[in-house]
Amino acid sequence: MVNVQFATSVHIMLALALTAKADCPKLPNSDVLAESIHTNPVVVRRLLSLLNKAGLIKSARGKNGGVQLNKSVSEINLKDIYVALQIEDSIKPHNKPQKKDCAVSCSIHSIMSAVTEGYQKTNLKYLESLKLSDLIKKVKINKA
Amino acid sequence: MVNVQFATSVHIMLALALTAKADCPKLPNSDVLAESIHTNPVVVRRLLSLLNKAGLIKSARGKNGGVQLNKSVSEINLKDIYVALQIEDSIKPHNKPQKKDCAVSCSIHSIMSAVTEGYQKTNLKYLESLKLSDLIKKVKINKA
Repeated sequence: MVNVQFATSVHIMLALALTAKADCPKLPNSDVLAESIHTNPVVVRRLLSLLNKAGLIKSARGKNGGVQLNKSVSEINLKDIYVALQIEDSIKPHNKPQKKDCAVSCSIHSIMSAVTEGYQKTNLKYLESLKLSDLIKKVKINKA
Repeated sequence: MVNVQFATSVHIMLALALTAKADCPKLPNSDVLAESIHTNPVVVRRLLSLLNKAGLIKSARGKNGGVQLNKSVSEINLKDIYVALQIEDSIKPHNKPQKKDCAVSCSIHSIMSAVTEGYQKTNLKYLESLKLSDLIKKVKINKA
């Protein structure tokens, strides 16, 4: 269920963005984040590891330690998160061997490679247009 | 492996388009198509059933029977095939329950629904721009 990992990661990144905005003295850790998302801390730790590897977040040790964003919210977009998670696109070429006497069989790989490449470019351009700074504005803060 | 089903279906549709172009007296059946793709006839029959349900192909019974396109190649695009196969996009909202005291948890579903909807629209617009009549021009016919 790779696709849900993306939503979970956006959830994590928005939670970290809010923490930064609120200037909380204590940073959230994977347990706190997992509780907010209603998921397993192991899932969160795996995603944090990928986001960390991509340079989107960093860890701080110590009593108030936890994770935090490694860039400003205007410098992070959904393409960054999608690429960090190495999500597979929903279409790709098939890798069946060619049948020499079949014209479609001999051409399908290059045709589908071009289709898939265009599909991926289109997707990434769209996701790149969505910055964390825009999404954070859509989080409804309850001022009870 | 939903994503490979798309490439396999494009392969099928291009093979049918070529058959129509060549005006072959005998229509291909699932066994012939499966051989061209190097896949199992059961896989092909499942895809043919979905393409048929979407009105993209039709069957003809009898000695020379098999499957054929149900529309002209300029009337069929890759969006039609993608939609026919009911392919899941690579991202979608997570469906975890809300945590009432967490602003991100209460907003993430509507945020991710908007992101996913935009993503889907962008994808489908791209796939719609690719007609079978354009792809067929990229099939290299060996005139040996």
